[in-house]
Amino acid sequence: MHTYKIAVISGDGIGTEVVPAAIEVLDKVARLDGGFQFQWTYFPWGCDYYLEHGEMMPEDGLETLKQFDQIFLGAVGMPELVPDHISLWGLLIKIRRGLKQSINVRPAKLLAGLESPLKNPENFDITVVRENSEGEYSDSGGRMHSGADEIAIQNAVFTRKSTERAMRYAFEIAKNSRNHVTSATKSNGLTYSMPFWDEVFNEVKEDYPEIDTAVNHIDALAAFFVMKPQAFDVIVASNLFGDILTDLGGAIMGSIGIAPAANLNIEREYPSMFEPVHGSAPDIAGKGIANPIGQIWTGKMMLDFLGHHEAGTRVLDAIEKTLASGIKTGDIGGSSTLAEVKEAIKQNL
Amino acid sequence: MHTYKIAVISGDGIGTEVVPAAIEVLDKVARLDGGFQFQWTYFPWGCDYYLEHGEMMPEDGLETLKQFDQIFLGAVGMPELVPDHISLWGLLIKIRRGLKQSINVRPAKLLAGLESPLKNPENFDITVVRENSEGEYSDSGGRMHSGADEIAIQNAVFTRKSTERAMRYAFEIAKNSRNHVTSATKSNGLTYSMPFWDEVFNEVKEDYPEIDTAVNHIDALAAFFVMKPQAFDVIVASNLFGDILTDLGGAIMGSIGIAPAANLNIEREYPSMFEPVHGSAPDIAGKGIANPIGQIWTGKMMLDFLGHHEAGTRVLDAIEKTLASGIKTGDIGGSSTLAEVKEAIKQNL
Ligand SMILES: CC(C)[C@H](C(=O)O)[C@@H](O)C(=O)O
Ligand SMILES: CC(C)[C@H](C(=O)O)[C@@H](O)C(=O)O
Repeated sequence: MHTYKIAVISGDGIGTEVVPAAIEVLDKVARLDGGFQFQWTYFPWGCDYYLEHGEMMPEDGLETLKQFDQIFLGAVGMPELVPDHISLWGLLIKIRRGLKQSINVRPAKLLAGLESPLKNPENFDITVVRENSEGEYSDSGGRMHSGADEIAIQNAVFTRKSTERAMRYAFEIAKNSRNHVTSATKSNGLTYSMPFWDEVFNEVKEDYPEIDTAVNHIDALAAFFVMKPQAFDVIVASNLFGDILTDLGGAIMGSIGIAPAANLNIEREYPSMFEPVHGSAPDIAGKGIANPIGQIWTGKMMLDFLGHHEAGTRVLDAIEKTLASGIKTGDIGGSSTLAEVKEAIKQNL
Repeated sequence: MHTYKIAVISGDGIGTEVVPAAIEVLDKVARLDGGFQFQWTYFPWGCDYYLEHGEMMPEDGLETLKQFDQIFLGAVGMPELVPDHISLWGLLIKIRRGLKQSINVRPAKLLAGLESPLKNPENFDITVVRENSEGEYSDSGGRMHSGADEIAIQNAVFTRKSTERAMRYAFEIAKNSRNHVTSATKSNGLTYSMPFWDEVFNEVKEDYPEIDTAVNHIDALAAFFVMKPQAFDVIVASNLFGDILTDLGGAIMGSIGIAPAANLNIEREYPSMFEPVHGSAPDIAGKGIANPIGQIWTGKMMLDFLGHHEAGTRVLDAIEKTLASGIKTGDIGGSSTLAEVKEAIKQNL
């Protein structure tokens, strides 16, 4: 029986509530499967840690994480106490980059039992592949002059290697999906980065003649998520565009509280990190009412990445069954507690 | 009686159909008002012009336009024949920048008679103030190396002057609206431009103690447009974020075919340019089925900017009355032609 060593960073706010719930579900599905088990090691890193130690994680944090198979993360951020750029760049983005998790994958899918805010949502099922290591999220740039003359410059940096990697991954995923890849661009407004993006896309797609493609500007694409989300299969997007599209994907599903995500080191040189799209939601933290589905579905993505597709499907089916039976938290129109939802999902496995 | 000299650039595709329709409506509302009239001067600039002359407009085009009070533009772009970066940077963006139209204003509003794709849209009424002269849309950047080593860099440039101008304009508009301004940021991911943006916003808001404010990251804001658009009044956004939010605004209204826009030189040193959000839609051009409402509503924005608020209200009321009576084009669920919609709006003035 294989044992996976997982580093757990529950993080801040509701992260500390939803992570243990998801772990219970994952332990149970492993038991039912019989072929593998998890060994969870907890790291108390996050904003509380920062307030005590002046850093979000220890200096050798990345080295420590490298000894694990995967990382399971809750949520990071307590903007009232720690500025976002410290909490995120000191932990979340630091791990994404330090462990070369250069691909971020996020599905958006109409789930049985979930109310989409769209009037007539056809059965959409989108996978956004987001470049996760560079692009608009750069630490290159600066500020100059002061007062009325001040200027700020942010350099978006696109390398051939990372751009191509994200695109190839999107095409690979599309092979096991519905054979369609859409590229999110904005080459009509951004005259260096996005024409480059388009050129790489045009080259990469030559290697996948069996996959259909489309190219949309990000503004139109955002509108299409509302007007015809069923038109998309796999979407490949830059770091910023992927960020925007996946929150929008959460919204059309019915709540960003349920959207899962994976930060993948596809070369499997270092551990990947599985973290839901939602944040730490300090306003509802500690009340036992947070929605654990984003974290549990994120666990399914980890199972898939580990090759346990059957167990993964079991988890998603149990989520859908639970939702369809009306057991849901307040954010998606129910009145159940976090514990009730978790128990129901475990029962339905 | 005052005569406004308007430069008309119908442009490409459906631009050449919706512009004459809107002009008929504007002429009629001027006649009904009795206090002003329009003198329209047509310029055949656009992609056809480019194919003939090798440029989107003559070299002295900007100088020519400066002699007019305002510019009324249809749509630009025929991507099959002229690459977008040529058609847009050679005309649309060239005019926006050359005539210092540094503010772009776009409303998103639930109109009577229009079907929103949202299930339960409360009565939203949003005005997006978009910085229109710099930011992510810069011609600063470059490419380096080739093949597998190639990189592309796009520099987003934010100046204090332009940032502050957009924000102040948003606050001024909010005074005549519902006294609320939301700033679209992404300072948790973009570490130079957006923290600067946040700082300027915090300073500017001090001058408007009577206006309530909120700050949202662009990813969350995009999701909120779907989940709770009624929560917003005025939104101030960078060039790119404003671009994305306004297409999304069109989508939740029911169609980007109806969304209007104004590129304003708020100092009134040069003419402003009024152009709808939609593009040239080559696929439906020439069939007489394009939706003229975006262009007509854009005409209302021109009336407002010229100080003719009563005439402007009359136009919007006539649009709503027409929609409510079921006279609409195919894109918004009707079966009327462009001409029928135009006639009905003229009747309803
Ligand atoms: C055509 C394009 C350059 C333009 C923009 O992004 O500004 C359009 O999307 C708009 O919003 O007017
Ligand atoms: C918190 C923030 C830096 C992060 C991002 O933009 O990547 C978040 O929005 C996400 O999508 O994971």
